[in-house]
Amino acid sequence: MDLYTDNYFMSEALSLAHRAAEAGEIPVGAVVVCKQRIIARAFNQTELLHDVTAHAEILAITTASEYLGAKYLQDCTLYVTLEPCVMCAGALYWAQLGRVVYAASDDKRGFSRLGKSVLHPKTVLDSGIMEEESRQLLLNFFRRLRT
Amino acid sequence: MDLYTDNYFMSEALSLAHRAAEAGEIPVGAVVVCKQRIIARAFNQTELLHDVTAHAEILAITTASEYLGAKYLQDCTLYVTLEPCVMCAGALYWAQLGRVVYAASDDKRGFSRLGKSVLHPKTVLDSGIMEEESRQLLLNFFRRLRT
Repeated sequence: MDLYTDNYFMSEALSLAHRAAEAGEIPVGAVVVCKQRIIARAFNQTELLHDVTAHAEILAITTASEYLGAKYLQDCTLYVTLEPCVMCAGALYWAQLGRVVYAASDDKRGFSRLGKSVLHPKTVLDSGIMEEESRQLLLNFFRRLRT
Repeated sequence: MDLYTDNYFMSEALSLAHRAAEAGEIPVGAVVVCKQRIIARAFNQTELLHDVTAHAEILAITTASEYLGAKYLQDCTLYVTLEPCVMCAGALYWAQLGRVVYAASDDKRGFSRLGKSVLHPKTVLDSGIMEEESRQLLLNFFRRLRT
């Protein structure tokens, strides 16, 4: 039985999203996987760092590039709990990710409203893995913010 | 006579682009201006940092946010020598820049091929300031690379 499934890696990303929520950050988590190993873990830290660019995906690919000593991540998969925004999709384009998997869609700020051409043509895109868990975490976070 | 013109601030960005070229980086420079003061200066450092996200604009707005201790830059203008890519335009959206001014257009990777909606609706956009100087610097850089 293969332990290293999409669900396994997405659950790791979701665990990071929970840590973001605990820290008062919009709960989005991401991991970068290379040869079935997680080489980078990150969660959204825009509040802590006062930095709008500190999304989970940006932090994860920067960490992965640092680890590999390479700018390009063609052999890597990024798992992220929310559909990347335009900024992050643009970063994934430059990093030439081999594959991108996201959980919940983001109809408002997700990149796909601009068309898949924002990603690199060689990047394989999948979505919907653990979608419901990620969506519930986001909904609960924003519900608590409003009360 | 007003010293603090668009040309003045763009020439500062262009000077940073020259420093990028000297360092072997694609020559793009940027400054963030707030109340006629330059609060951040940056040039492209993707090679040095092995980081595809280390574009001049990303480094400049991160530095400006750090300086101001604030995520949003509504009172700031970003001057950059090349039209921002999709990633950078997405970052400028999140930072809610008051105004963005770029020099040369980038027909291939510039954000405007996706429409101005990538930027924040309140961001004022201008372009073409010192366009020729920026374009020549880029052309010379790529010409030297090929020889």
